[in-house]
Amino acid sequence: MKFPLTLADIQSAHQRISPFIHRTPVMTSELVSEIAGCELFFKCENFQKIGAFKARGGLNAVLSLPEEQRQSGVVTHSSGNHAQAIAMAAKMAGVPAYIVMPETAPEIKKKGVASYGAQITFCKPTQQSREETAANIQQETGATFISPYNDYDVIAGQATASLELYDEVENLDALITPVGGGGLTAGAALVTHYFSPKTKLYAGEPDGAKDTYVSLQNGTLTPVESPSSIADGLLATMGDKNFDIIKEVIEAVFLVTDPKIVGAMRMIWERMKIIIEPSAAVPVAAILDNKATFEGKRVGVILSGGNVDLAKLPF
Amino acid sequence: MKFPLTLADIQSAHQRISPFIHRTPVMTSELVSEIAGCELFFKCENFQKIGAFKARGGLNAVLSLPEEQRQSGVVTHSSGNHAQAIAMAAKMAGVPAYIVMPETAPEIKKKGVASYGAQITFCKPTQQSREETAANIQQETGATFISPYNDYDVIAGQATASLELYDEVENLDALITPVGGGGLTAGAALVTHYFSPKTKLYAGEPDGAKDTYVSLQNGTLTPVESPSSIADGLLATMGDKNFDIIKEVIEAVFLVTDPKIVGAMRMIWERMKIIIEPSAAVPVAAILDNKATFEGKRVGVILSGGNVDLAKLPF
Repeated sequence: MKFPLTLADIQSAHQRISPFIHRTPVMTSELVSEIAGCELFFKCENFQKIGAFKARGGLNAVLSLPEEQRQSGVVTHSSGNHAQAIAMAAKMAGVPAYIVMPETAPEIKKKGVASYGAQITFCKPTQQSREETAANIQQETGATFISPYNDYDVIAGQATASLELYDEVENLDALITPVGGGGLTAGAALVTHYFSPKTKLYAGEPDGAKDTYVSLQNGTLTPVESPSSIADGLLATMGDKNFDIIKEVIEAVFLVTDPKIVGAMRMIWERMKIIIEPSAAVPVAAILDNKATFEGKRVGVILSGGNVDLAKLPF
Repeated sequence: MKFPLTLADIQSAHQRISPFIHRTPVMTSELVSEIAGCELFFKCENFQKIGAFKARGGLNAVLSLPEEQRQSGVVTHSSGNHAQAIAMAAKMAGVPAYIVMPETAPEIKKKGVASYGAQITFCKPTQQSREETAANIQQETGATFISPYNDYDVIAGQATASLELYDEVENLDALITPVGGGGLTAGAALVTHYFSPKTKLYAGEPDGAKDTYVSLQNGTLTPVESPSSIADGLLATMGDKNFDIIKEVIEAVFLVTDPKIVGAMRMIWERMKIIIEPSAAVPVAAILDNKATFEGKRVGVILSGGNVDLAKLPF
């Protein structure tokens, strides 16, 4: 299989973004490993800038634009972490950012994006309105549209989280990520292929948004209608660029229910004293739900983010 | 001033307990430092075994007992982190632990103590009942009573948290701890005196439990009646051994109200994605409330613990 991104592409992305991101710690917990029945290594992207791995992909995409193109700015639509990632990346690169957000987005996210000096345009909370509004801005300003996940520069950026984990922890038997749009998982797939081919790659996916699971069964991209889960970062539909990479490498996708996601999230909060968002708890729930697969193994887990509204906790 | 604990005593305590505790990380956060107007270095004892610095003092006290005495076991009364610390230390030393807990103690704390195999005796939720029950056990079993803070071996153990912080971060202008019974602060005072005498030592104390503040003003131990604060780890009355050490070194004690404690706790959760208990938020609240004192300085903060009942959050 020849992948559209090379080993060197990923290393370049890492060099490009390293001055601007945190090298997040890999944490372990005897207690949690005991509960899971395997040795867990948590890559803590909840401690990443903007509180999520998305800072990596956003930065790599913005910094990879040719100088002249970059000056016209970047545009995206997102109600979540990608919006903040692009706003932050544009600020660091000194170029304008135009962010389309649904008017229903949480106040805290709007404030977060505004704090980086991005120009926010509100739209109706539909996919159509988002895309039209972004397209209009693109035409008016000449800004470059950056997809939250279906973009090779974004994938290369997200890949650096797995790269750092493999660099720090040797001989992982397995690596597991949450999967939504697929940027993080596609990045993990490439890094596993190039740097640690003996490691088995898994993903955890919410039962209420199981398009990756179904797509892998069908061998073709199969969106699900009205995805719904407490893991709000994983509702996006898998991108085709991501899917083509993931399907070549991944061992299995495990589906988990919302109650199990909440239980795993609470367990990590209580035992490890760190804050992870529901999406980040999905791979943890998948491990707890499939203990036989991971028994006695050395398992890397990407804790994808920690952005939680403390006023609306599920416990 | 000649202190009852020498530099060598503290170094010995560190050697004694190091194989059994976590060397907790020192975390920084650009965002939080910016908010505070100074450069903050957080010693994360919320990541310590049992979720609090108390593991240090408990272990040092148990491991410092002569072999023969140790075999008869240890006894203490506590509804909180000290109970778990002694239970864990006794388990590690392979000796019996007898823990007196008020029958009203939270289920999670009872379970925590029981999980280390300690023998729990329930008593009425009064100081008198606690002390009598512990004294009875002491007489029956020959176990050694270990005070939660008014004990030199406990103080030497707690001191190791500050020792590691000074070892890792040079040239701190200030160090601030929460203060309750005084073990952590007395330990910090000794370490500051011996290892970093130019550093100014401060403490944060809840306004509703301000016995240390009042005692320093009066120059003599002055308990307050019915202490009350959301910082439930800081309600104990300062011990005389601790006070005699602290009063020689400390620069000032800052009082903070419960709403400010909750605000500081929430800010740390949101910005740093780590879980700290209200007591640990007290020094943070003190800094935010006294910005002029710390402006532009390099400030060490002991985040004392992370044991919070997630079902009863104040936000």
